[in-house]
Order: sequence, then structure tokens, then C-alpha cells
Amino acid sequence: MVVAVVGCGAVGSLFAANLATLDDVEVWAFDLAREHVDAINRDGLRLTGAGEVTGRVRATTDAAELPSCDFGIVATKAMHTDRAVAATAHAFANGCVATVQNGIGNEEVLARHVERVIRGTTFPAGKIVAPGVVQWDVKGDTTLGPFEERPAPFEQVERLADACSRGGMPTKAVEDARGPQWRKVIFNAATNPLGALTGLTHGRVCEQPALRRLASQLVDEGKAVADAQGIVLDADPEELIDYAARPEVAYDHKASMLQDVEARRQTEVDFLNGGIAGFGGRLGVPTPTHQTIHALVKGVEASW
Amino acid sequence: MVVAVVGCGAVGSLFAANLATLDDVEVWAFDLAREHVDAINRDGLRLTGAGEVTGRVRATTDAAELPSCDFGIVATKAMHTDRAVAATAHAFANGCVATVQNGIGNEEVLARHVERVIRGTTFPAGKIVAPGVVQWDVKGDTTLGPFEERPAPFEQVERLADACSRGGMPTKAVEDARGPQWRKVIFNAATNPLGALTGLTHGRVCEQPALRRLASQLVDEGKAVADAQGIVLDADPEELIDYAARPEVAYDHKASMLQDVEARRQTEVDFLNGGIAGFGGRLGVPTPTHQTIHALVKGVEASW
Repeated sequence: MVVAVVGCGAVGSLFAANLATLDDVEVWAFDLAREHVDAINRDGLRLTGAGEVTGRVRATTDAAELPSCDFGIVATKAMHTDRAVAATAHAFANGCVATVQNGIGNEEVLARHVERVIRGTTFPAGKIVAPGVVQWDVKGDTTLGPFEERPAPFEQVERLADACSRGGMPTKAVEDARGPQWRKVIFNAATNPLGALTGLTHGRVCEQPALRRLASQLVDEGKAVADAQGIVLDADPEELIDYAARPEVAYDHKASMLQDVEARRQTEVDFLNGGIAGFGGRLGVPTPTHQTIHALVKGVEASW
Repeated sequence: MVVAVVGCGAVGSLFAANLATLDDVEVWAFDLAREHVDAINRDGLRLTGAGEVTGRVRATTDAAELPSCDFGIVATKAMHTDRAVAATAHAFANGCVATVQNGIGNEEVLARHVERVIRGTTFPAGKIVAPGVVQWDVKGDTTLGPFEERPAPFEQVERLADACSRGGMPTKAVEDARGPQWRKVIFNAATNPLGALTGLTHGRVCEQPALRRLASQLVDEGKAVADAQGIVLDADPEELIDYAARPEVAYDHKASMLQDVEARRQTEVDFLNGGIAGFGGRLGVPTPTHQTIHALVKGVEASW
């Protein structure tokens, strides 16, 4: 089986390196970071931290080099999806493509370019610490399911989930993957931008009663939008917020959006609060707080 | 007539220096900035820019030195009102005290310490450029009126307004000064924190359609709170927002709250969005957007 990871940043690398430990899987990585690609080809792709893994991965900055693949795993930042999938779609003409990205709306973008799409949500996290080397910060589960509008066959979803699990990334195949995805997007949209706008870590956001209430307001609006689509969340995002605020979990964690703001990189807010507000608009569910937060973060981006 | 300006920063200095040009007014200034006070006593208080004025002002950092005054003009940042007026109240035992500060709720604080209170709103602005020297950026009108709960006699309000006008600060005495005050506080609360949270100047905030809509949402909530009190705004804050966005007015102006955030100084948000939300809460008028903005700016302050 041949798998190509599209966007071999922190999360993409976790999939690529772990899958590459399997004898029956050939792993390719498409990424535009030349140094990272060269290091992977020279020394292998190395994970440290929550797991020590070095995987033999064939990396390239040239999409034309990708062979015909059984599966794609898209792990770019959400705003780069369209360009990355347009460039690599030829490799998936006979395959299925999963997204494990943050936010909502990514499957719709994949479906513009490829035939068989897998909706995915993943919790593991890390960061690139040197070319070819990724620190694996947090282990966690992944959920995959057919994307309703352009579904991959369920047995193919199961086949990819099985390979990921065997490779060291516990993954479940489910008929409806929207519940875990909306739980995660609601969690992210309710907490990441509050860190990004205030400069506070996750734990400190939760300690400010007015900010914690604001997070709950964002959760409530997000739940209403999920509910209007008949999506049953697999757990309450509120629990995840309080759990993550514990000192031993992610009290000191700077949300990825805060990291983006500090580095003056475009954020994923369009796919988090903007995504929820967009679905809300189409469904007639009011999301004034997500709209406010979205406008403020876009304003921050405009100030650079 | 003896007048003491309490808090001789930029706005306080405009009043102090202009009043000091009158032969029939003795002007004192109470301020805690030692260098500024020394420079004023040595060289006079000097204004440059929109007007060139040097006024002979007796300045002190010691409230006990203040003589018995006919009038006080409080011009501290809103969060310092209570301490400053508590320290100086003895000087106003037989006098009237006006606030020309930003935000709402200042009169209530004055009324804890002095008997006769004047509600005030002022538009002139400037900044201290050196000890004893203030750049006068913007000319504008001032409105004074008796504070309903502890009113100064109207003829005293007129007497102070007349002195200010003769001194070069055009000032009107009115029976109900709430309209101009709420127009200004709504304007400030709808624009200052958007600049502070995004880093954008006033003009650039207004150019982002989503932020301009957010400003209108804040204006609408503010108008509803004013309306519930029977306050008739003297003009629409929306007009002021668009007027200020012109290149020749304040397109490039960084809101004072943005200046505070950049300097990591406590902001006046408690007296702007927090003030409107507080009145809204007591009156049963929903102000969810002001509450969101208030929580975010307090979060920024907590991050320092």
C-alpha cells in the first residue's frame, strides 16, 4: 500500500513516520520546506518525545514525483489545502484522500480535486524542532469516516485506519465522523482565539472568569450549529476545555493560534470561528460571538 | 476664583494652562509626576500645536498644599479617580467638582467624596511631550451639567463654563449633560478596543468591513442602554466614527487604548465597555458584545 502525506509539518510527520515503520506501507511526503525534505531523504523522518520513531519516508517538494497512491493524508494548515491538493491530486486518481487538519470545511476543498474523500480528526500534536525532526508532544486518537458528499468506500476507510493503528497512531473508522470533528473544532474555536487575542496560555484563559464564560458562549453557539445539522458530539467540548486547563495537561500551552500571532503567520481562524459562523449562516443559526472573534483575529492579521 | 486641576496629564493640562491665562483665575494642579510638577513650577505649563499657550500654574504632588478651591476639574485616567479625589476632597469642601474624564461612572466616584458634582465631557486631546510641555493635538468642545444625584448649582456650572470658554476652551453649560457624554462613551467603546485588540489605527479598523460592522453592533447596544435611561444623544456616534476615519481627521490615530496596550498600561476599558455593560446589567438591556470585548481587553491586561 502506498500513502502520501500532503503537508509534512508536525502532524503530517507523526502519520508519515509511524506509517513508515510498517513493512507493507510505502510512505511519501510532499512538502515545500526544502531543508526538511532534504533531511528526511538523507536521515529519515525522526520523532522524539512521546514516542521515539525514525521512519524511512520518501520526501519531495515536487508533486510530479509522487507515484500513484492508495491513500493521501492531507495535513497542511487549512488555508493551504486548496493549492496543495490541486498540485497532488493526480497521485490520488485511483486512491482515497483523508484530511486530518484543524477546522471545518477542509473536506469540501478536497472534494473539488479528488473523487473519494475521508473526513478525519486527529488529536496528537507536536512541533518541528529541526529539519527532519519532530517533537511528539501529545499522543491521542484519530477518527476517520467517509465524507458524505464524496465518500470513500467504507472498507477503504477501515484499511487506512487499520494501517495507522498498526503503525502507532490509534485510529477508528466510523460511519459518521462528524461528531468528533465538531467536538474538536468547537473546542479549538472556543479557546484558541482567546489565547491569540489576549496572549494568555490555555490555563490562564480558563482562570479569568469572564474569558471562561466567553469560551462557554462560543461552545454553546457551536453546539447549536452542530445540532442543526443533526450532528451528535461524541463528548462535551466543555469537559475538554477544563481537562486541558489542568497543570499536568496543557495549562501552560500557548494555543497554536497564539503561536501564529506571535510569529505573524496567517491563522486558521477562517476554518474555526469563520467555519462555524459560515455553517451557522447557511443554517440560520445565529453565531454573533464567533463572528466577533473572527473579525478581531482577521483584524490582527491585517495589522501586520 | 480658584480652580484646581486634579490629574494634570494631557487633558488636565489643556484646562490648567488655558484657565491660567485669565487674570481672575488662580490655577492649581495636583499631579503625582514629580518632574512634570517641578517643570510647571519652574517654567510654567506650556501648550504647543493647536494652540501656543504658557500658563502660570502652581503645581504640587502633595494634596495637603491645595488651598480651598471654588472648582475642581478631575482629569486623571478613570481608574485613578477614587484615590485622587479622596486625597484632594478637602480642597473642595465649599466648591464644585467637575469630571472631564473618559467613560462613564466617574461622577459616581466623585460623589463618594464631594458634595457638588458636575458631569462633563470634553473632546480636546493632546499628549505630554516633555515635563511641563503638552502637545495640543485636537481642539474641541466641552459640555458641563449638574450631576443628577449630587448636583452642583446650575449657576456654578455656568460660572465654570464661562471661565473655560474665556480661557480658550469652548464650554457649554447644559441642564442634562448625559447626551454628549453617552455619545462620546459609545464612540470610544465602539472603536478604542477594536484598535487595542487588533493593533489597527482608527481608519484601518473602519476599512475592515467585519470590524466596522462590529463597531456598529457596539454602537447599537450602547444606544439601547442610553435609551433605557431616557438619554437623548446629541448626535449619532456612527457619524463620529466615519468622520474620524477621514485621512485629514484621525485615520492614522492609534486609539488611546491601543497606546495603553502597547505601553502595557492598564486601560480604561472598565469605564467604557465595562461601564456600558454595567449600566446594561442594572437596566436589563443585553450588551453581549460589550461583555465580550471587555473580557478580552481584561485578558490582555492579565497577560502582562
